[in-house]
Amino acid sequence: MSVKTTAVHDATCIFCKIIKGEIPSFKVYETSHSFAFLDIQPIAKGHTLVIPKYHGAKLHNLPDEYLADILPAAKKVTEILNLNVDGADIQEGSQYNILQNNGTSAHQVVPHVHFHVIPKPSAEKGLVIGWPSEETDFPALTAFHKEITEKK
Amino acid sequence: MSVKTTAVHDATCIFCKIIKGEIPSFKVYETSHSFAFLDIQPIAKGHTLVIPKYHGAKLHNLPDEYLADILPAAKKVTEILNLNVDGADIQEGSQYNILQNNGTSAHQVVPHVHFHVIPKPSAEKGLVIGWPSEETDFPALTAFHKEITEKK
Repeated sequence: MSVKTTAVHDATCIFCKIIKGEIPSFKVYETSHSFAFLDIQPIAKGHTLVIPKYHGAKLHNLPDEYLADILPAAKKVTEILNLNVDGADIQEGSQYNILQNNGTSAHQVVPHVHFHVIPKPSAEKGLVIGWPSEETDFPALTAFHKEITEKK
Repeated sequence: MSVKTTAVHDATCIFCKIIKGEIPSFKVYETSHSFAFLDIQPIAKGHTLVIPKYHGAKLHNLPDEYLADILPAAKKVTEILNLNVDGADIQEGSQYNILQNNGTSAHQVVPHVHFHVIPKPSAEKGLVIGWPSEETDFPALTAFHKEITEKK
């Protein structure tokens, strides 16, 4: 395990500095365990980051008490951003993505867990998703499922 | 608000049927509030969905107690999938994405909140991300921040 997972703050981390106010940010919302602020290189207007007040590089490095606080905080952010608009079905009302990347190959840049709340105002703006889905392969799924469940 | 947000289960929802066992699934993990199972059209081996045991179409429709359970459950899924491998930095160790889509334009298909846990084994497999980021525009950010904070 990375040594960074044992520390609540990392003195060299830009996000830890934002939490502590050592670097200014456009704060959107804050709780005892989470901090939300505008991304200064947004991919859509309102693009916000929700981060735990605990320095962990990847999702699995965070204690459950910090993980448990993030999505209620993200929900609050959707309310502040007026993204909590419902419609008759999912084609209507607000359109937005929640994304958290773990590892450089998976598009992570800052090594402190951050959840993106990204409005999706048009096809061009916001998160653009490529989805290389495979055909359903029941024998392969069955074998993989057996592998992970027998391991437990 | 959609009427669906007031019901814990929706009799016509495929994910509610999976939770109740009316439709079989490759279960990975389960808590009192969450259910995790393999996506049968994976974009990478191990692609898993974590869903709340509450029928809500979008993130902001979920009660906080269900939201709070999802990420600890997703962390448990990363452990079951052996995605909890750390390295010296974020270039190393496990690479994976957490994604939750809200609305058809944002790539949502099933109208019951679901968090994708997607391993990123290569550039071609797993989640492919397009990131149309803008240059930092401090006057625009300042104006938007004022707008959302004065509204509160």
